[in-house]
Amino acid sequence: MAETQVRFGILGCADIARKVSRAIALAPNATVTAIGSRSLDKAKAFASANNLPTDAKIYGSYEAVLDDPDVDAVYVPLPTSLHARWAVLAARKKKHLLLEKPVALNAAEFDTVIEACESNGVQFMDGTMWMHHPRTAKMREFLSDKERFGQLKSIHSCFTFAVDSEFLKNDIRVKPDLDAHGALGDVGWYAIRSILWVADYELPKTVTALHGPVFNEAGVILSCGGCLYWEDGQVATFYCSFLSNLTMDITAVGTKGTLHLHDFVIPFHEHEASFSAGTELGFNELVTAWVPQPSKHTITTHLPQEVLMVKEFASLVEGIKVKGSRPEKKWPTISRKTQLVLDAVKASIERGFEPIELGS
Amino acid sequence: MAETQVRFGILGCADIARKVSRAIALAPNATVTAIGSRSLDKAKAFASANNLPTDAKIYGSYEAVLDDPDVDAVYVPLPTSLHARWAVLAARKKKHLLLEKPVALNAAEFDTVIEACESNGVQFMDGTMWMHHPRTAKMREFLSDKERFGQLKSIHSCFTFAVDSEFLKNDIRVKPDLDAHGALGDVGWYAIRSILWVADYELPKTVTALHGPVFNEAGVILSCGGCLYWEDGQVATFYCSFLSNLTMDITAVGTKGTLHLHDFVIPFHEHEASFSAGTELGFNELVTAWVPQPSKHTITTHLPQEVLMVKEFASLVEGIKVKGSRPEKKWPTISRKTQLVLDAVKASIERGFEPIELGS
Repeated sequence: MAETQVRFGILGCADIARKVSRAIALAPNATVTAIGSRSLDKAKAFASANNLPTDAKIYGSYEAVLDDPDVDAVYVPLPTSLHARWAVLAARKKKHLLLEKPVALNAAEFDTVIEACESNGVQFMDGTMWMHHPRTAKMREFLSDKERFGQLKSIHSCFTFAVDSEFLKNDIRVKPDLDAHGALGDVGWYAIRSILWVADYELPKTVTALHGPVFNEAGVILSCGGCLYWEDGQVATFYCSFLSNLTMDITAVGTKGTLHLHDFVIPFHEHEASFSAGTELGFNELVTAWVPQPSKHTITTHLPQEVLMVKEFASLVEGIKVKGSRPEKKWPTISRKTQLVLDAVKASIERGFEPIELGS
Repeated sequence: MAETQVRFGILGCADIARKVSRAIALAPNATVTAIGSRSLDKAKAFASANNLPTDAKIYGSYEAVLDDPDVDAVYVPLPTSLHARWAVLAARKKKHLLLEKPVALNAAEFDTVIEACESNGVQFMDGTMWMHHPRTAKMREFLSDKERFGQLKSIHSCFTFAVDSEFLKNDIRVKPDLDAHGALGDVGWYAIRSILWVADYELPKTVTALHGPVFNEAGVILSCGGCLYWEDGQVATFYCSFLSNLTMDITAVGTKGTLHLHDFVIPFHEHEASFSAGTELGFNELVTAWVPQPSKHTITTHLPQEVLMVKEFASLVEGIKVKGSRPEKKWPTISRKTQLVLDAVKASIERGFEPIELGS
């Protein structure tokens, strides 16, 4: 293989690590070189069930992965409450960091991760896969086109899925000491990210939570929503939930154009994805039909989005290792902005749905 | 023709009256028998431009239409500020009433219209055409199906269109003394109605306007939005605007199902319309694609929705005239609920985006 192989260590055997270890295997510039779990047996079982390379090292602790000099980068799918501790430690051990979302319990905590990455010269990226789908770039072209989309006016995003009773009892995403942000941190992260993405990462001025969030007995959010307002009049709303049928929408409306898609987080199909876009839409003379109508744009991709994520991350790592490039700041910057809005939604809920002014 | 022809008088020559006069002509049980305008010349020009029946009477006043004993029903597309006056007068003259939306300046004013209709035994219906499309009935089946949709959790609706500078200067919908509610009364009416329709007309407990509404110099709303909350935790958001590209969405998410459509007010095509529906949607094993996926449902209709509206209205009028039926209360009831929510959005804006508790 011509390309440098970035050697990944995986911390823990989370469900999502199955998908990402496959993605590392499929990426042309990455390989799994180690996996660590607090249970050696679990790590062995994971390695075998997920066809890790036969020479991949299997450890009975996370520390051992971080101490392995053959590991260039770590993928960290641990519960949110453990992110800061292990991410900071990984950075100090000079391991580049692909960290699952939500990146931290709050932005202040995440700042310790960013600081550790910066002072150790390692690349940071969070695991928001859809950012790397070629459809996302295609949609960005549309949104950035003043002729086709104009000026952004409003955004709506929604990500929900219906969990079962087993999830509601035992999943780490409903446990206050693990993924403390519940649905807001899990599905809400994507909805918030999508809004910031549409707004080209301009932070809103204020964030207000919607009334009626649902909590479990331990106080973890099972569903909630929010409104975001920008200085120049843009408005966004979002809704996220563990208690509704699987739905994942982005609607972005500008002065001249409209964008719709209903599978933004995980495309309906692995190798192709669509969106609907329309410019200066209107009606026929008697207003009984649309002229013109929005059109469907389909983008095919040989590599699924999670592979493209790993490939992009590994390519940045390679640049740092081989060419002496500096880490790309875009990725920690957008992670932090997403976390800031998430924190604001939570603060608004805690303060009785007051608008929260966003700091920087 | 076998069916009784309900004889319509039209008050005024509004643009929308072109579409509705054609609908009356196309409806098998209705005919235009008179048109009145404050200007006889305008009425004559309208009659000729819109191919009204050659024997249709042309009047230089609204009163003359109401005094014509050959007129069974009136279609009233006058500016909102004139609705109550002319609607009440029409009812007193025993004319059945097809009234454009928004039905009144506020619910209290609309109550005078309802009272006049009830005490004179005339049918009331507002001009919300999409209610009468067969697609709407088909979507209702889906939403009412506990197996396919489950319990309603969240709704989002959006209706926007981009007006030109001429509209912003001169259209009645930006004039405080004419259509005083601006975009909220015009496009917002549909968004609010669609939310109430999804919620099977259960009124929300509270309504809160979104921050950032845009007003013109005369204080008329050009864009705004709102959040609706129900006692049992349902949440809805909407956005309406004269300043964004044409967009008209309903998203309804239940515990088991999701409904999407992007042309709810005016279908993309005159004779067929679609929606997307999905039940218990999920992913493949590695969460890289959807299984199952939502499906598209297409409904054809020989008669466009505005003709079906006229037909339904005329059929109710015929029932009253010929069979001595009582007026159908469903229509004024849902008009009133829509107006109540519209009033609450306006009150919330006026009170600094406070939640407004809904009366009954």
